[in-house]
Amino acid sequence: MSIAISNAIIVTQNDNRDVYRGNVKIDGNKIQYVGKDEVDGDILIDGTNKVLMPGLINTHAHVGMSASKGLFDDVDLDSFLKKTFEYDSDRTSTGIFNSAKLGMYEMIGNGITAFVDLYYSEDIIAKAAEEIGIRAFLSWVTLDKELTTQIGDPVENAENFIRNHVGNKYVVPSVGVQGIYVANDDTFRRAMDLAEKYGTILHMHLSETRKEVYDAVKKLGERPIEHLHNIGILNKRVLAAHCVWATYHEVRLLSKDGVNVSWNSISNFKLGTGGIPPIPEMMRENVNVTIGTDSNGSNNSLDMFQAMKFSAISVKNYRWDASLMKAQEILDMATRNAARALQLNAGSIEVGKLADVVLLDATIPSMIPTNEANAVSNIVYSSSPQNVDTVIIDGEIKKINGKILGFHSNKFTNSEFK
Amino acid sequence: MSIAISNAIIVTQNDNRDVYRGNVKIDGNKIQYVGKDEVDGDILIDGTNKVLMPGLINTHAHVGMSASKGLFDDVDLDSFLKKTFEYDSDRTSTGIFNSAKLGMYEMIGNGITAFVDLYYSEDIIAKAAEEIGIRAFLSWVTLDKELTTQIGDPVENAENFIRNHVGNKYVVPSVGVQGIYVANDDTFRRAMDLAEKYGTILHMHLSETRKEVYDAVKKLGERPIEHLHNIGILNKRVLAAHCVWATYHEVRLLSKDGVNVSWNSISNFKLGTGGIPPIPEMMRENVNVTIGTDSNGSNNSLDMFQAMKFSAISVKNYRWDASLMKAQEILDMATRNAARALQLNAGSIEVGKLADVVLLDATIPSMIPTNEANAVSNIVYSSSPQNVDTVIIDGEIKKINGKILGFHSNKFTNSEFK
Repeated sequence: MSIAISNAIIVTQNDNRDVYRGNVKIDGNKIQYVGKDEVDGDILIDGTNKVLMPGLINTHAHVGMSASKGLFDDVDLDSFLKKTFEYDSDRTSTGIFNSAKLGMYEMIGNGITAFVDLYYSEDIIAKAAEEIGIRAFLSWVTLDKELTTQIGDPVENAENFIRNHVGNKYVVPSVGVQGIYVANDDTFRRAMDLAEKYGTILHMHLSETRKEVYDAVKKLGERPIEHLHNIGILNKRVLAAHCVWATYHEVRLLSKDGVNVSWNSISNFKLGTGGIPPIPEMMRENVNVTIGTDSNGSNNSLDMFQAMKFSAISVKNYRWDASLMKAQEILDMATRNAARALQLNAGSIEVGKLADVVLLDATIPSMIPTNEANAVSNIVYSSSPQNVDTVIIDGEIKKINGKILGFHSNKFTNSEFK
Repeated sequence: MSIAISNAIIVTQNDNRDVYRGNVKIDGNKIQYVGKDEVDGDILIDGTNKVLMPGLINTHAHVGMSASKGLFDDVDLDSFLKKTFEYDSDRTSTGIFNSAKLGMYEMIGNGITAFVDLYYSEDIIAKAAEEIGIRAFLSWVTLDKELTTQIGDPVENAENFIRNHVGNKYVVPSVGVQGIYVANDDTFRRAMDLAEKYGTILHMHLSETRKEVYDAVKKLGERPIEHLHNIGILNKRVLAAHCVWATYHEVRLLSKDGVNVSWNSISNFKLGTGGIPPIPEMMRENVNVTIGTDSNGSNNSLDMFQAMKFSAISVKNYRWDASLMKAQEILDMATRNAARALQLNAGSIEVGKLADVVLLDATIPSMIPTNEANAVSNIVYSSSPQNVDTVIIDGEIKKINGKILGFHSNKFTNSEFK
């Protein structure tokens, strides 16, 4: 099956960041042609008045909680954690499965073609991802055995999950660690051994809150990033979510160790845990920064357009410098950088890349006028889910003409989400 | 002409903030019934799986600049101002008219039923508002005669504009002042005289940037709000945009004088001018706080859902307190408080109020599940323009089934916007 997209403004996100009006051919699950020549295919998509861009990659989520929106709002962090803990400890497989499907449909609707998840019960979430067909990097969360509500040893559970899902079409299994506040050195080491044994990422929360940093210093004599560096856990396999409370010294350690960072500004802001990581310093030190939404429990939406805009302007404001965090840099984080973190052959519109692409409708007033000169700016600052016209994942159409294929809201209206 | 809306979750925004499933009847341009009884009308709208709420009111915009998105991004404030000044000084009537129409269609698409504008050439913008049918509170901007590029005396221009537009169906004319940095006491006094003579609002920029405050202190020996209070300009007619750099003493002055504040967080953040006004203190002192988008030049979108969410979480983060700025308080600012500032008989779904209402589609994944308990939270934290199904202004349908009536994007594709 081939798809020909003609006459679109192509935001390639290639090494030159070329933006031009042209045509793209998808053959099977790969991009076969990008350029000015006419293209033909089994399915023809008219790209006139549309912007073609790589699919957005959400590098930190907990999709099993997607139906929890509005349950934990406007309360302090301790109350939030207490409420989510109670919610999580009492969940059914059906609830997790339905919530995960809901979140995946939301992400596809919003132009997200791949995401990274951190949760227990990733086997259930994997089933949802395979059924829907979205690229799911699923990290089974581990923590100290004596602190978990998981049945059995979390690290063994993670290994079973990875072993059972290696080689799946859509699911890429991996291991996670909840965070330094519930994982000792041994748990971190066992998780990293697992990541190295199976060649996966190690996905973790890191330096999200002040309390986490203070407690680590008190207990370990070191800040969280310093400590994980010193015990040899930090390397290029690590995808570290948040990293809000990193010192410049720690930024250099992240850089030296090749750690990938997932920046989750909306969640950090909404929880009041301190929202502004040292992103400009990370960029200066060539840390690979990506962007995540976090869950519907703390963000209330899985919207990477919103995350891109808010991330950009939060730093501009905090540093009193509007020239920081340029639209192009932000779009790189949400596409190219994320693909690099996941070693995914995607993140740009180039020949040979996986066909994970999005078409934005530029006929909606918020995107008028759109042209080659302002296309990147309009993606980052003016777009929202209403602009997402077409979503293609692995060469398959998942949303077209604004309609999410296979999604029927009535199947969720009375569903069990708990 | 009457409209009957049945079986919707009604977020009334009445004094009790009642939220319940029920029916609404609109007769002519007023709400005639709200409750549980069956309703009938010339037009029947099925509200099942929809949330009915008052139309959003955007209290600070410059819609004549709506086509300028992507032109002034990622540069420091001085460069931004230089670029916008050059852009503005060279505009045609056609460009302003087309840009204004574009911005009004964008706002209707996004669930905004009324807005407040600050610009010169409001006579052109008034024509666009009357043609499209959106409630437009248009403030002709004044400044010192020797500093303006307007032809003639700005205050006289404002008076002519007001005189020519009193009593219009959609347009409510008023007077504005650009700001203390280009307006001396005499200009402020003449503008206020005009507002009192014609019973209009006085709409101004106030304490938006640090430079504005420093320069005022240097020149006048007082901070901007203090100074305007001391020369008798501040009263309940005033709608003051920004007020970022207000001290607690100044907050008390705003409260004492009954000034209405328009909070424009996204624009303030994106320009790096300091984004967090003392909103909790304003609320404590009963200042009437409302929310604005500012222009597409500095915000790049006219999206009050985005503005509500960013405004809420920016304060939560800044004050390290997630319990501040509750969803209900934020929704009040965007509806009830704004109507109060404008003395507009709207802002809630109640019998006798103007029929400015919006229906949100809750069948989109981002709004599932929505029920009476989380409806307000979902409006503020989970909704975006894609949820705006129906918009009714003054009893007339302006958007239905997600389609903006009368809007044809091809009329804008090659339009002259400059």
